[in-house]
Amino acid sequence: MSDKRTELDTLGEFGLIDHLTKNFETLNSSTQFGIGDDAAVVALSESESQLISTDMLIEGVHFNLMYMPLKHLGYKAVASNVSDICAMNGVAEQITVSIAVSNRFPIEALEELYDGIHAACKTYNVDLIGGDTSSSLSGLTISITAIGRAKKEEITYRSGAKENDLLVSTGDLGAAYMGLQVLEREKQVFEASPDIQPDLDGHDYIIGRQLKPEARVDVVGFLKQLNVVPTSMIDISDGLASEIMHICTASGVGCHVYDEKIPIDGKTSMTAIDFNLDPATCALNGGEDYELLFTVRQEDYDKIKGNPHMTVIGHITDKNDGIYFIDKNGSAIELSAQGWNHFK
Amino acid sequence: MSDKRTELDTLGEFGLIDHLTKNFETLNSSTQFGIGDDAAVVALSESESQLISTDMLIEGVHFNLMYMPLKHLGYKAVASNVSDICAMNGVAEQITVSIAVSNRFPIEALEELYDGIHAACKTYNVDLIGGDTSSSLSGLTISITAIGRAKKEEITYRSGAKENDLLVSTGDLGAAYMGLQVLEREKQVFEASPDIQPDLDGHDYIIGRQLKPEARVDVVGFLKQLNVVPTSMIDISDGLASEIMHICTASGVGCHVYDEKIPIDGKTSMTAIDFNLDPATCALNGGEDYELLFTVRQEDYDKIKGNPHMTVIGHITDKNDGIYFIDKNGSAIELSAQGWNHFK
Repeated sequence: MSDKRTELDTLGEFGLIDHLTKNFETLNSSTQFGIGDDAAVVALSESESQLISTDMLIEGVHFNLMYMPLKHLGYKAVASNVSDICAMNGVAEQITVSIAVSNRFPIEALEELYDGIHAACKTYNVDLIGGDTSSSLSGLTISITAIGRAKKEEITYRSGAKENDLLVSTGDLGAAYMGLQVLEREKQVFEASPDIQPDLDGHDYIIGRQLKPEARVDVVGFLKQLNVVPTSMIDISDGLASEIMHICTASGVGCHVYDEKIPIDGKTSMTAIDFNLDPATCALNGGEDYELLFTVRQEDYDKIKGNPHMTVIGHITDKNDGIYFIDKNGSAIELSAQGWNHFK
Repeated sequence: MSDKRTELDTLGEFGLIDHLTKNFETLNSSTQFGIGDDAAVVALSESESQLISTDMLIEGVHFNLMYMPLKHLGYKAVASNVSDICAMNGVAEQITVSIAVSNRFPIEALEELYDGIHAACKTYNVDLIGGDTSSSLSGLTISITAIGRAKKEEITYRSGAKENDLLVSTGDLGAAYMGLQVLEREKQVFEASPDIQPDLDGHDYIIGRQLKPEARVDVVGFLKQLNVVPTSMIDISDGLASEIMHICTASGVGCHVYDEKIPIDGKTSMTAIDFNLDPATCALNGGEDYELLFTVRQEDYDKIKGNPHMTVIGHITDKNDGIYFIDKNGSAIELSAQGWNHFK
C-alpha cells in the first residue's frame, strides 16, 4: 500500500463504488447487466432474466434499535430489498439473509428479527433460501440478497428515460423521514427524562411509514395490467432528489419537477411544519419511502391518468436544460442530491 | 419480546440457523433447494439450475488485519464463496460484494481489497455484478454472494452418500490452520518485542494456504473429465471432522475415516510437531483449507485411483455403525465436530 491517504468521504457512496469497480471486466455471457442499477441482470432463458440485488444494514448507521423493534427491522430489511427488484419491474422470488450479532443479543431477540423476516416473506411471496449466521464484536449487521425475475423486454433500467417522457411517483413522499424525526425527538425527550411517556399520538401514519414500509409490488402488477412498461424506473430509498439525479444521469437527460405536484400526505406536511421544515424538502431529501419513481411515454398518459397510486410530478427535458425543481412561485431551482452519504 | 433470555451459544451456529428458519415455507416453484447445503438451488431451465451461496466476514472474528493483507483478504473472500459453488459441483459465474467500513480505512485500503477481489474474479472467471458500500461504526465487514450454475443431474448435495461409497478428500489438509498458528505466534512475538523481525522462514507453504487459499474449480473440471458425479460433496472450510459429520448427518449414514490416509503435507506435519500438536488433529479440526470432500460409488474407484489431486480417506457405513476415526494403532475413536463455533 502506498503512503497516500484519501479519506472515504471524498468520493461519496456511489463515486466510491464506481472508483473501486472501474477496472472489472465482464467475463460471462450470462451477465447481462452488472453494477449501476437497482439490481443486476443475469440470463435465465431467451425470454426471461433474473434480477439480483444486495444490501447491508448496520446498527447505528442504518437503524437504531432504541426505537426500531427487531420484528419491524426484519420486515423492513426484506421490504427494502424486494423494492429494488420492483424498481427493475420484476417479481422477487428468493432472498438470502446473513446476520452478524454480538453476544448482547439473546436467541429470543433473533427470533423477533426472523419473525419479521418471515412475515415479509409471506407478504411478498419470497422464499428464504440461504444465509450465514456469525458473531460480531459489536452490534447487529444484516446483509440481504434478493433474487427475482422479469421478462427480458419488461426489465426497466434507470437509463431509458427520453425527452418529453412523464416523471411519475407512486404513493406519497417524505412520510418516512418525518416519522424518523418524531421518533428521534421522543428518544431525546426519553433520554433527558425517562419518566415522560413518548408522545407519538396522531403520528401513526408517518411512524408506520418509517418502521414498516412496504415494497410496491402492487404497482409492478398495476403496470402490467395497464400494459405500461416504464421507460426508466428506480425506487425512492435515498430521497426524491437523489433518485431523479440517478435517472437523469443514467439516461443522459434533464428534468423539470414541480413542487405543487409532489404527493405529500397531509399528516406529513403538518408534522413538517411543526418541525419548521418545508414539506417538499422532506420529500426531496428524506429517505426510505420505498415508493417507485418512473418515466412513461406521453402516449401512455391516458393509461395512468387518475390512477390513485400514481402521480405525474414532472417531465423529462433535454440534457442541456438541466435538472430543475420548479417551486410554487414558478422559480426554477437547480436540483442537487442531498440524499444519504453514509460516509459523512 | 418475552423476558426469557437464552444465550446465542447454546445452539451453535448451525443449530441456530435451523431454529430461526424452521417455520419458513417454500412458496415458489423456482426454489429447488433452500437452506442446508453449501448453496441454494434455483431453477434456470429444464436441464440447468442456479447455485447461490452467501457468506459474511467480520474483522476480528473471521480475519485479523494485523497479518492478513487487504489484497489477500479480498482474494480469499471470493475464493471461499467460489468454493461453496464448487462444493455443489457447479461453476461460479457472478458475485456481489457488500462492504461496511469505518473511517479508519482510507480509499487506498479499499483499493487494495478490491485489487484482491479483482484478481480472484479473473482467476475464477466470475463477474462482480453488484454490491453495497456503507460506513460501519467499527472495523470492516464483507458480505459476498456467489452465483453459479450446474446441470441439474450433476448437482451434488451433502445428502447423497450411500453405504459402501468411498470418502475422498482433495489436496492436503491442516496447512491453513498451521499457517494461522505461525502467524499468531509471530504476532505475539511482535507485540511483546516490536524490534524482532517475524520469523516466517520455511513456512511459505502453510502461510500461503492460510492467506491465499484457492477454490478447487480444477477438481470440478477433473470430475467432469473423469465422468464422475460424486454422490455427495462439501467444501472443507470448518475442518474435516465437521464436514464428515455434515455429510453423514445429511445422508443418514455412518463413516470410517483412516488417520493414515488423511493427506497432510510434510511441512504441515513438521510445524504441527513443532507446536506439540498432532497433525491429524489439525486436519480434523483446523479450518479454511477449502479442499473438497466427496463420496463416490465403489465402481468409480478406478476412475479416481492414482489421481494426484484426490485421496480416498475412508468409506461410508450404515448409520448404526456410527462415525469413526481409525487411528494408526487401529483404535476406533468416535468423531465429534470441533470446527468453528463463532459464538463460543
